[in-house]
Amino acid sequence: MTYAQWERKTEWPLAGAALGFLGIYAWTVLGQPERTSAALAEHAVQVIWILFIIDYLTRLMLADRRGRWFVYHLHELAIVVLPILRPLRLLRLLTVVSFLQRSVGGALRGRVVTYAITGTTLLIVVASLAMLDAERDASDATITTFPDALWWAVVTVTTVGYGDLSPVTPTGRLIAVGLMVAGIALLGVVTATLASWLVQKVAEQDEANQAATRQQVAELSRQIRALRAELGGEDSSAQYTESNFSTVRNR
Amino acid sequence: MTYAQWERKTEWPLAGAALGFLGIYAWTVLGQPERTSAALAEHAVQVIWILFIIDYLTRLMLADRRGRWFVYHLHELAIVVLPILRPLRLLRLLTVVSFLQRSVGGALRGRVVTYAITGTTLLIVVASLAMLDAERDASDATITTFPDALWWAVVTVTTVGYGDLSPVTPTGRLIAVGLMVAGIALLGVVTATLASWLVQKVAEQDEANQAATRQQVAELSRQIRALRAELGGEDSSAQYTESNFSTVRNR
Amino acid sequence: MTYAQWERKTEWPLAGAALGFLGIYAWTVLGQPERTSAALAEHAVQVIWILFIIDYLTRLMLADRRGRWFVYHLHELAIVVLPILRPLRLLRLLTVVSFLQRSVGGALRGRVVTYAITGTTLLIVVASLAMLDAERDASDATITTFPDALWWAVVTVTTVGYGDLSPVTPTGRLIAVGLMVAGIALLGVVTATLASWLVQKVAEQDEANQAATRQQVAELSRQIRALRAELGGEDSSAQYTESNFSTVRNR
Amino acid sequence: MTYAQWERKTEWPLAGAALGFLGIYAWTVLGQPERTSAALAEHAVQVIWILFIIDYLTRLMLADRRGRWFVYHLHELAIVVLPILRPLRLLRLLTVVSFLQRSVGGALRGRVVTYAITGTTLLIVVASLAMLDAERDASDATITTFPDALWWAVVTVTTVGYGDLSPVTPTGRLIAVGLMVAGIALLGVVTATLASWLVQKVAEQDEANQAATRQQVAELSRQIRALRAELGGEDSSAQYTESNFSTVRNR
Repeated sequence: MTYAQWERKTEWPLAGAALGFLGIYAWTVLGQPERTSAALAEHAVQVIWILFIIDYLTRLMLADRRGRWFVYHLHELAIVVLPILRPLRLLRLLTVVSFLQRSVGGALRGRVVTYAITGTTLLIVVASLAMLDAERDASDATITTFPDALWWAVVTVTTVGYGDLSPVTPTGRLIAVGLMVAGIALLGVVTATLASWLVQKVAEQDEANQAATRQQVAELSRQIRALRAELGGEDSSAQYTESNFSTVRNR
Repeated sequence: MTYAQWERKTEWPLAGAALGFLGIYAWTVLGQPERTSAALAEHAVQVIWILFIIDYLTRLMLADRRGRWFVYHLHELAIVVLPILRPLRLLRLLTVVSFLQRSVGGALRGRVVTYAITGTTLLIVVASLAMLDAERDASDATITTFPDALWWAVVTVTTVGYGDLSPVTPTGRLIAVGLMVAGIALLGVVTATLASWLVQKVAEQDEANQAATRQQVAELSRQIRALRAELGGEDSSAQYTESNFSTVRNR
Repeated sequence: MTYAQWERKTEWPLAGAALGFLGIYAWTVLGQPERTSAALAEHAVQVIWILFIIDYLTRLMLADRRGRWFVYHLHELAIVVLPILRPLRLLRLLTVVSFLQRSVGGALRGRVVTYAITGTTLLIVVASLAMLDAERDASDATITTFPDALWWAVVTVTTVGYGDLSPVTPTGRLIAVGLMVAGIALLGVVTATLASWLVQKVAEQDEANQAATRQQVAELSRQIRALRAELGGEDSSAQYTESNFSTVRNR
Repeated sequence: MTYAQWERKTEWPLAGAALGFLGIYAWTVLGQPERTSAALAEHAVQVIWILFIIDYLTRLMLADRRGRWFVYHLHELAIVVLPILRPLRLLRLLTVVSFLQRSVGGALRGRVVTYAITGTTLLIVVASLAMLDAERDASDATITTFPDALWWAVVTVTTVGYGDLSPVTPTGRLIAVGLMVAGIALLGVVTATLASWLVQKVAEQDEANQAATRQQVAELSRQIRALRAELGGEDSSAQYTESNFSTVRNR
């Protein structure tokens, strides 16, 4: 089995496992289950964890250049090994987005925006859960209910930062830093997408200065070749030129 | 009657209805009218609501592909049906902007900026009204007067977020989230417009590297055709080339 | 005397008047002078005000199309007439920047950045003075010293917005809104300048895809004309083509 | 010894000195050493300071145009002379980044991002240390531990600005201003990099409108020359044209 085949086959089961993990996680944080139920939930989380470890190891085995793969996927190792990064396993759910995308089709900008919106929403929900879990029992905590945590997450990710609620525990602040970084990235994605769209539209409207296209120049080349042929030029040279243009075009 | 005709004919009446809605809404929130007056205002709001429903249904009927139209206009259904999204009906007032625009004429960037400024101003006013309505009666509310609500809205939409005032009710926080998202969009629009302008200006200044235009290449093509004609080339081939260039140019 | 001559001749005197205004304004706010000194300062401010009114009226007279000029310079009318916009007269000091610029020379991006930095610095100082003047006597004010006002202005213009200090008077909040808008513009200018620089550099590095320049195509055109001349083409046609290219280049 | 040789030779020793400075600085602030140890640390800092002065003076001597070099390196003079700017000497550590970069290789955008991330991280650590040093002994300070200072620095650089912690001393506020400016720059770099990437990708995808490249036009030129050669054109003219194209290409 190749690396690509493994990825295609495990895509949906792993997304399902991540969804299961989200469900169990939310239930553990929000429902604050009794001792036996909590133990059961912990078992389920461990099973899902083992699935992710198996996936990680299998992909490491199947990779063409293992050393390189290892270095380029250090973040996955961190997600699998460090307990605090556990919620990040949910990013696997972005697979669902990639499926939606495929059915919709669409251009690069649309895909970037879809990922940004879905990723941000997912991050807000997960960060709220993790924040509630971290802060709830601190003595001077201001974030003590799930709606409060959600509100705090939105205020943070938009970089508004009222400060009516803010984390006080080390874990809570670590989660907050992640959300702030996501907020900067979100601002960047929104702005960049708008800028790219405007640059393109303005270039299209400016008809007098529209850049000559490769097709046009290739057409010119054909005309000159035709002219040479009429005057008795060499075929071999024309052939060479044609292939030369194709190379440039396919780059 | 076609879809376009309906839109053109209802454009101004609906903008007027939205303006009336804004007036009644502002009067209800700021004037806090007596029981009989409040009932009258409620009746007027319901009449305007029915107008919007009629508009929605008529457009659904007139649409070429109803299924597709329904999916692409789900946000309009939400605005018409959900009571909490009621103030969004005022976005209809952007029609007035589109009219101003038409008389001014002008380029894409100008239009984007005009919409951003007008939309943001409208949103600040409406969000302030809605926020005041939502927060006024909460026991620990900090936003209790209209000037306070306006100040809070500006602080939020610019993502400054002092936190001297912040919403405490669920409805108020929902309104705030909308305003924050608008704030990110506003930042994006301002930056993107400036970036697009700078990219264009810098490209224009850089004379040594100005891109060859389609007109130039089309001119070259004409020269080569003239040369072939002088040497006795075929007319049919020239015809083909001409139409080919037109296609590229019109795309 | 033409409009341009008037502008060139009054440029420096008016910048001087603005500087004098800044000095008097800062002294009035920070020194809180006695009654007679205050009256003297008020007189000096009125003299400067009359200078600005004369400048405004003279330019209105000298303008080619007075109606159009009036509409396009409504903001100047507002600055001259409304007492609250008085500090904005200091924007005249940007003239000094434009002089520095001329001696430095330099490209568009550099000029944009210079204006942004100087304008922001000027705005921070002036807004701090105005804010101190507006808030000082309010009962629940938090901004009561000049260093505090400066700190608040920087926190606001960068959209950080701690909220440790925030205005409470209507005038103070109006000044704050101006500063927030400037903050969004500043963010936009910084980002747009960086983006424009990156887009240009990346395009230059990407040698394989560098766009054909107008010079190159003009050179091609010259080659084809030479070929036609060798084959006995018509001079008149070549002339037409040459002028055609010039038109395109100069647009 | 030339300027470039001196820079290459002192690059690593000076980065080492900066690292030593960071270590001593962190130890002084966090460990709050006894009197004799503190005196020792102060001596070590002075030695490092002398190293930086020697480097500054030597480069001034070796510079081609000393007056120009002096004006363009005024910020280095400020860093060397002003005691408050001392921590900025640590920016020398960015040399390490430039080394990492060289081994990784990579494109312009990648380098910009690497510098932004490393510089921001370094700045956060140094600003936290300096802030703790400045605020610790103030009576109404809220930033009194190193984790608090780190948390404050991240909240500030992302422009979130909760305001749960904020500096109260003049030195602390000066450090904060530096961090806010860095935050705006960071937002700008992130957005600009994304925008540049999107603009490039969208341009590449839009195959129908891809700009004609210089290579293509140079190829065309070669075809026309070949045609002229076949018809008995002049070699000297072809030579001239060839060199002309090279000039354009190398600009």
